[in-house]
Amino acid sequence: MLSEQIFKEMIVKNEKKIILMIMDGVGGLPMKDGKTELEYASTPNLDKLAKKSCMGLTNPVAIGVTPGSGPAHLAVFGYDPVKHEIGRGVLEALGIGLHLTSNDLPARANFATKDDNDIILDRRAGRIPTEKNIELCKKLSEKIKKIDDVEVIIKPGREHRFVVVFRGEGLEGPLADADPQKEGLKIKYAEAENPKAKKSAKIVNKFIDMVSEVLKDEKPANTCLLRGISKVPSVPVMSELFGLTPAAIATYPMYKGLARLVGMEVLDAGETIEDEIKTLKQNYKKFDFFYVHIKKTDSYGEDGNFDNKVKIIEEVDKFIPDILGLRPDVFVITGDHSTPALLSGHSWHPNPFLLKSDYIRPDKAERFTESECLKGSLGQFYSVDAMPLMLANALKLKKFGA
Amino acid sequence: MLSEQIFKEMIVKNEKKIILMIMDGVGGLPMKDGKTELEYASTPNLDKLAKKSCMGLTNPVAIGVTPGSGPAHLAVFGYDPVKHEIGRGVLEALGIGLHLTSNDLPARANFATKDDNDIILDRRAGRIPTEKNIELCKKLSEKIKKIDDVEVIIKPGREHRFVVVFRGEGLEGPLADADPQKEGLKIKYAEAENPKAKKSAKIVNKFIDMVSEVLKDEKPANTCLLRGISKVPSVPVMSELFGLTPAAIATYPMYKGLARLVGMEVLDAGETIEDEIKTLKQNYKKFDFFYVHIKKTDSYGEDGNFDNKVKIIEEVDKFIPDILGLRPDVFVITGDHSTPALLSGHSWHPNPFLLKSDYIRPDKAERFTESECLKGSLGQFYSVDAMPLMLANALKLKKFGA
Repeated sequence: MLSEQIFKEMIVKNEKKIILMIMDGVGGLPMKDGKTELEYASTPNLDKLAKKSCMGLTNPVAIGVTPGSGPAHLAVFGYDPVKHEIGRGVLEALGIGLHLTSNDLPARANFATKDDNDIILDRRAGRIPTEKNIELCKKLSEKIKKIDDVEVIIKPGREHRFVVVFRGEGLEGPLADADPQKEGLKIKYAEAENPKAKKSAKIVNKFIDMVSEVLKDEKPANTCLLRGISKVPSVPVMSELFGLTPAAIATYPMYKGLARLVGMEVLDAGETIEDEIKTLKQNYKKFDFFYVHIKKTDSYGEDGNFDNKVKIIEEVDKFIPDILGLRPDVFVITGDHSTPALLSGHSWHPNPFLLKSDYIRPDKAERFTESECLKGSLGQFYSVDAMPLMLANALKLKKFGA
Repeated sequence: MLSEQIFKEMIVKNEKKIILMIMDGVGGLPMKDGKTELEYASTPNLDKLAKKSCMGLTNPVAIGVTPGSGPAHLAVFGYDPVKHEIGRGVLEALGIGLHLTSNDLPARANFATKDDNDIILDRRAGRIPTEKNIELCKKLSEKIKKIDDVEVIIKPGREHRFVVVFRGEGLEGPLADADPQKEGLKIKYAEAENPKAKKSAKIVNKFIDMVSEVLKDEKPANTCLLRGISKVPSVPVMSELFGLTPAAIATYPMYKGLARLVGMEVLDAGETIEDEIKTLKQNYKKFDFFYVHIKKTDSYGEDGNFDNKVKIIEEVDKFIPDILGLRPDVFVITGDHSTPALLSGHSWHPNPFLLKSDYIRPDKAERFTESECLKGSLGQFYSVDAMPLMLANALKLKKFGA
């Protein structure tokens, strides 16, 4: 992709509409009858669409590299995923639905167990039940509202995990983790990775001591570890960079958070795919770019559940005519990263990518599958180039040079 | 490829084993019946393997660029071949089997002829016979053992070529060549290309004068030229960068030297392909990465001998079942660069690349040939990305970002 500055100068605004549907982790590996999830699924509508589209495969970050959801999504949104790194604390905070501001320093936290000599005995406090976690977070929230001039926001996650957001002026990151990494070692305090982060380190370490104090009679969760302590990356918003008025339709908090990060308006999208498509229809007039996120292809991939991943693909297929009924100028279907049920996790395999617009050379592919995408005219390209391609097909980009 | 720092943080160690077989210069051009060497060869085992593998084509350095063995190999080993440049002196020294240390400054040398006024009359001393070369190197070795505190090691090559290694503290490179480039010009002394290399220049130029003195009654070889004077590049070793325990199985000194440079343990591999495969079997338990080098595909390519290059390919084919019998987790077959018999030399054409693991989308290719690789799902990529791909397929890489 060209530099952000060159890119910005090429932007043309018009009324044309783009729908980007990310089927999270949709790419797979052969697992049943030698077929991948997409190959196994019955998808008459996607098949019909494939015949009129152009296709390819995208690489989220680099060859052989398995991306997390953060970088994989940023890339499809048109942002260099290596340049714009998102800390784990930020992602966890987005994941539980916190709205982060530029004054926020979030951290991913564990409840942990220490002895009287401050030796960490269990980095996960025996994986306490979520109910206990909620109770402890409530207790901490009541006792620790502010440290100096910094507001402290504490939210429970699952088992031993919670999130802390430090909100105030002059908080800079990143900090080296306040985590000894191994049991049997002494409590480790956070350390500033640059001089500007000194105030943050002071506040964060005061917090750790206060937690140990508040929880001193608790068992096994009597202290905490903090990791991934860094600020929200300041990313130029999509309206500024691409001239778009973008909206996000997603059901899971993390994806809403990622969308908010790049300046999308996050719509109330309900809980099911049907809800999402309804939201798309209802808001279709108000925006010119829609990010529609399908979560469960990834969830079932992570579970190693081939059959259920196939079912989600088939469910999505049923809504394709509804989406085409809106007559979008550009319609893209792709994944952020692959999540083959065979691997029960994210993988490095490139994502199937389909683009339909009035200005393509259709590939006359038989289906929307990895192997058909491989034959497509878009070839193999980096996810970050998907945005220029969508904008071009919406005639939203001027010539480069004269 | 991501930066070395980011990459290192992604490494996971496990027991999985990778075999990388480099058939040197295997890629070719149509020459007989319109077929390339790989297309012409009868390779039933490679054909069978191709059906279950994924394939692609690799570009060693840049489009249109023909690489030497050094950069081409470094790239497949996962090192940026432009960043890690290897001097000709280093490569020649490795090529004759010298073990280089970080205190060594090697140079590629020619015997040459000068007149009484130090005018170079023949830069190759009439291409003296190798026997004469050996005799002169012996004489020089006896007379020039040390210059100041620097040890001098002299080894004959072929005809007029020899290698000098200066070994001592404080020797830095690179130096500009001590070679006037044209006959009829005056002897040219080496020049430091930076202030740190001044000591090296002094020693090297003393050496040239000493050679002229020792050989003053010889004819036609009465002086020398020195070129490619630079130190061994300090390359992070594979164990550090990729978490591997790597071994090299190669029969030619230069490739052993290149492998040693990146920290591989160089095994005693005998002389034939059969010896090499035996070595692989015997040492299979001890390492998790094996670089197996097949030299003669390149040698016959260089000779313009299409038929013999075909025969070597067919010989390699016979050993494929033995290698698969070891059940490697990842098996890659590729070239470092192409050496088409049609060109009698290295070329810029991308290398056929085949990868077999449990986590691929097989391409169902008919054969392991350039044209079948072109249709492969790995597409065309840079050789340097082969290492991340091998590591990913061996599940030796963590996620990038969260």
